[in-house]
Amino acid sequence: MPKFARRMDNLKASEIRELLALTADPSIISFAGGLPAAELFPIDKWIDASNKVMTENGAVALQYGQTDGFERLREHCITRMNKVGVKNVTADDIQILSGSQQGLDFMARIFIDPGDYIVVESPTYLGALNAFKTYEPKFLQIPLDEEGMVMEDLEKQLKEHDNVKFIYVISDFQNPSGKTWTLERRKRLIELANKYDVMILEDNPYGELRFEGDIQPSLRSLDTEDRVIFMGTFSKVFSPGIRVGWFNASKEVLEKFNLVKQGADLQTSTTTQMILSQFLDDNDLEAHIQKIIDVYSKRKDVMVDAMKKYFPEEVSFTNPEGGLFLWVTLPKELNARDVAVKAIEKKVAFVPGGAFYPEDPEENHFRLNYSCMPEDKIEEGIKRLGDVLKEAVK
Amino acid sequence: MPKFARRMDNLKASEIRELLALTADPSIISFAGGLPAAELFPIDKWIDASNKVMTENGAVALQYGQTDGFERLREHCITRMNKVGVKNVTADDIQILSGSQQGLDFMARIFIDPGDYIVVESPTYLGALNAFKTYEPKFLQIPLDEEGMVMEDLEKQLKEHDNVKFIYVISDFQNPSGKTWTLERRKRLIELANKYDVMILEDNPYGELRFEGDIQPSLRSLDTEDRVIFMGTFSKVFSPGIRVGWFNASKEVLEKFNLVKQGADLQTSTTTQMILSQFLDDNDLEAHIQKIIDVYSKRKDVMVDAMKKYFPEEVSFTNPEGGLFLWVTLPKELNARDVAVKAIEKKVAFVPGGAFYPEDPEENHFRLNYSCMPEDKIEEGIKRLGDVLKEAVK
Repeated sequence: MPKFARRMDNLKASEIRELLALTADPSIISFAGGLPAAELFPIDKWIDASNKVMTENGAVALQYGQTDGFERLREHCITRMNKVGVKNVTADDIQILSGSQQGLDFMARIFIDPGDYIVVESPTYLGALNAFKTYEPKFLQIPLDEEGMVMEDLEKQLKEHDNVKFIYVISDFQNPSGKTWTLERRKRLIELANKYDVMILEDNPYGELRFEGDIQPSLRSLDTEDRVIFMGTFSKVFSPGIRVGWFNASKEVLEKFNLVKQGADLQTSTTTQMILSQFLDDNDLEAHIQKIIDVYSKRKDVMVDAMKKYFPEEVSFTNPEGGLFLWVTLPKELNARDVAVKAIEKKVAFVPGGAFYPEDPEENHFRLNYSCMPEDKIEEGIKRLGDVLKEAVK
Repeated sequence: MPKFARRMDNLKASEIRELLALTADPSIISFAGGLPAAELFPIDKWIDASNKVMTENGAVALQYGQTDGFERLREHCITRMNKVGVKNVTADDIQILSGSQQGLDFMARIFIDPGDYIVVESPTYLGALNAFKTYEPKFLQIPLDEEGMVMEDLEKQLKEHDNVKFIYVISDFQNPSGKTWTLERRKRLIELANKYDVMILEDNPYGELRFEGDIQPSLRSLDTEDRVIFMGTFSKVFSPGIRVGWFNASKEVLEKFNLVKQGADLQTSTTTQMILSQFLDDNDLEAHIQKIIDVYSKRKDVMVDAMKKYFPEEVSFTNPEGGLFLWVTLPKELNARDVAVKAIEKKVAFVPGGAFYPEDPEENHFRLNYSCMPEDKIEEGIKRLGDVLKEAVK
């Protein structure tokens, strides 16, 4: 009876969400989700910040607030931008978001007419594809090698298509591949975006979770023509349950984001913004991030060591320098969806790679998450997965 | 340089938001906003609920949660639905929203292709028009009389247009008019929606804030073919700063809302949902609502009495039975925008009525809010406004 809009034909339930429901079974060792380690949440400090805000300023914290966000929190975002090399940012250059997923929606909303192109990494973040599809774009997939997006392929596509609206990039510890772009590729991307007059969406949820080496300059810091829209989030360095992220972009673009924010949800929760801001006033976020890095880095090492030990040699995988995910590649003739079914029988879960491509999925990959499992479970899960893989490659 | 999508041509900054910025001047008596009375927020009880949730369950409250919302909070929504006459609701029939503004966006997102029609009351809520415009609908405006939407006009339009997707209605203490639909009109609306195969969006933010008489059955409670999508919010009965609302609709529609929720922001804040839910577990919301009613009812009376005393007889106004707003009508030849400029000079602010029409605005109305000003300021503000109006009608 209800006659839905045409765009609804494009939207399907996220396979990851369905897989996560399946893995609610506590006997399953799940590498499927992308959850931060809950045992690291600074609960006591959150309580202190919350009580301070509510005692001193409760009537403001529970009231409507500004569309662009709580000013002191926008000031804290300046520190985060400085850390990824972006200078000369003021609070006015920040739009607070209800998590960075909302930014993906807004980005397509302000740029995409049906049939316009979005360039994505191949593979790319599934949740971005779902958000973008609402606005009926076409996708151009550019392969990733060990240094980032392959620039020759990108330029070829930009040359051939004149209605490319933006290039979507997770340049640090990408979801799902765990790969990080080299500085050279970053600079080349900016050159090509300038040359072909295309915007860039830099999605940077994991950049501060670097286990080794130096943080690469963000694309926004290399931006010469105000083309890069930077999207950050407190989900991975503080808590995803509060739903707070931000945009940094040119004034012209921020003005549009402010307009769509009014229509979409008026504003992000005043309450969570003020408590987060108080937490950042009173605590050393850098020290907290270092704690997260120490734990994730160890878990990643345990996972990689176990994979070396238990996986058959036909199977390869990335060894990320940060973030939450790594990417496994099977021999071409194997389908990771079949392997996933076998793995679930052995009580191990992961996300088959096909979901991370808008079209022509490569089915011989899968994504593993290492952030939210204790080390002994990682070892045990990878051992079981090794058995499944040895059977599969036979 | 950025090439924005076509839909961005439809979006303009909300006049109300700009007016609100202007009225940040504390010397101005503002009847312009729609803020709940902050002095009534149950801050101490919020702190208790928050500390309980965080102490007992902090790791869950700061983690990702379900797309449809925190289950216990969805159970609390059942109580709210029962109160407006909707029975046989379960937690599975509820989708939690990041405020009901988000529901307006989702509604147009799942139903509207460019050029489809939305039927609205004339006047109607400005924020709804802004949300809908993103999806490029056309609007059909149906006048309101003292009993609700004029059904003859509605049927004429439904007969003439075959791509009407839904009828948007605030049937209780409407924003901006303060009007409430009679039971007879409600029943007739359902009949017409059934006859012409059209959905209904019932936006009910104020229904529980009734000063006198009985709560009218909601449209959803009169629904015979699962056509009504009910949208509720905790903004006016608890706090708008937490940004929590909900949908109740058919399974088929809820499934679509769940899909768009995933893309739009994954989920509403686990943190605020769990704290609100704990507050509702531990406190008597009915008693809290009664406190709000007592205060708003008194403020409304003070405003209406002052208007009778100070406004010239050429000016008429509604006398609402609940909610936050009333609606003033000037002689046809006067423009409320001109009056607003004069009023600001006298340090009084309101929203000119023209903003509440998608097209062909009637400019001889304005909206007054009485919820967030103390009684002496209301008296003083209306007195000043009376002087301006007496000058204007001369």
